[in-house]
Amino acid sequence: MTSPSRFWEANAGRTFVGRLATGSDLVAEIERYCAEQSVVAAQVTVIGAVRSAAYAYYEQDDHGYLELASTTHHEIVGFVGNVSLRDDRPFLHAHATFADASGATVGGHLLRGCQVFAAEVMIRELADVSLVRAHDEETGLALW
Amino acid sequence: MTSPSRFWEANAGRTFVGRLATGSDLVAEIERYCAEQSVVAAQVTVIGAVRSAAYAYYEQDDHGYLELASTTHHEIVGFVGNVSLRDDRPFLHAHATFADASGATVGGHLLRGCQVFAAEVMIRELADVSLVRAHDEETGLALW
Amino acid sequence: MTSPSRFWEANAGRTFVGRLATGSDLVAEIERYCAEQSVVAAQVTVIGAVRSAAYAYYEQDDHGYLELASTTHHEIVGFVGNVSLRDDRPFLHAHATFADASGATVGGHLLRGCQVFAAEVMIRELADVSLVRAHDEETGLALW
Repeated sequence: MTSPSRFWEANAGRTFVGRLATGSDLVAEIERYCAEQSVVAAQVTVIGAVRSAAYAYYEQDDHGYLELASTTHHEIVGFVGNVSLRDDRPFLHAHATFADASGATVGGHLLRGCQVFAAEVMIRELADVSLVRAHDEETGLALW
Repeated sequence: MTSPSRFWEANAGRTFVGRLATGSDLVAEIERYCAEQSVVAAQVTVIGAVRSAAYAYYEQDDHGYLELASTTHHEIVGFVGNVSLRDDRPFLHAHATFADASGATVGGHLLRGCQVFAAEVMIRELADVSLVRAHDEETGLALW
Repeated sequence: MTSPSRFWEANAGRTFVGRLATGSDLVAEIERYCAEQSVVAAQVTVIGAVRSAAYAYYEQDDHGYLELASTTHHEIVGFVGNVSLRDDRPFLHAHATFADASGATVGGHLLRGCQVFAAEVMIRELADVSLVRAHDEETGLALW
């Protein structure tokens, strides 16, 4: 009953590079900019630091997110992300690794609540492809 | 006796975006798709989660891989990878960071055995460049 | 008094793919190559391993870097980076996650002193955009 792997060929769209406002919400601010520019499919990376981290772990058997958070200031030391459409709006799916003052790291699926200290963002739009999230029965996730 | 740094200029090739089948092998499935599409040089990133992680640490003095593994479900919270030719086939060289239910992270060089729960993959082909792995005496690795 | 988010649209420039010399300095060597090629804005990723890691954590309240280092051999298991101009020269801003023989990870803002064991580098130039670092009062960082 498992869906096979699915791939689409895309073309390179616009490239945006930016810096987020100190104090802004990392995920919400990138989604806001993508909505403003009508970016509906993209690859996203971020380098920077947050005042607080809000992230989650998906319980694969229970099909629910376990929310984690830290108020420690963190460097963003790993980041993978993409933009697709969810409920007709640009949705940022991003996972990140955060490091604290001792270099120790934690990570997970980013939630709203990551408050930006400084963040340099690269958005590489994917043109001629439609990535629309819908409920996937097997994983419980909204996948394209 | 150390080789100097070597750089090549490439052109942008095709861009593929995809989702891997739940239960598939992360590394093998990306290599299979690259072989199917004749992708022999590319930059690869992945966001997602695995049911089990199989990775390794290279012992720089002993020139051997120390294999590590976990059957814990993990989020992929960092990923760097590329495709080149090894033994005439597309070979995925990838390192990843994995996070567990507490947010704690581990990472290393990916081996076969990372079973996909959900994985969104971006493959950016590099055209007009030839990346062929061959044994490097100094490191003991197969490098281009 | 906070600056708003700022974004620029860039065009895709040249793509360079390379391998750094064993024993070279990770950050310095990438900056040297960018200077040689007149790359002044780019997205950079690296996969590989280092003989030693030198990195830092930025104290957001004190506006100073806390330097961390390890002489343990490490795999690079997460990497985000970009090149911009600082003091009229190409400057690599990079954060990375490092894994040791047990898979345990640490990470931070990369400093000079990361000695390369093996490193595969991808440099994607951003054309038609000017990223120039200058002092930012609010964060104490050199931002564009």
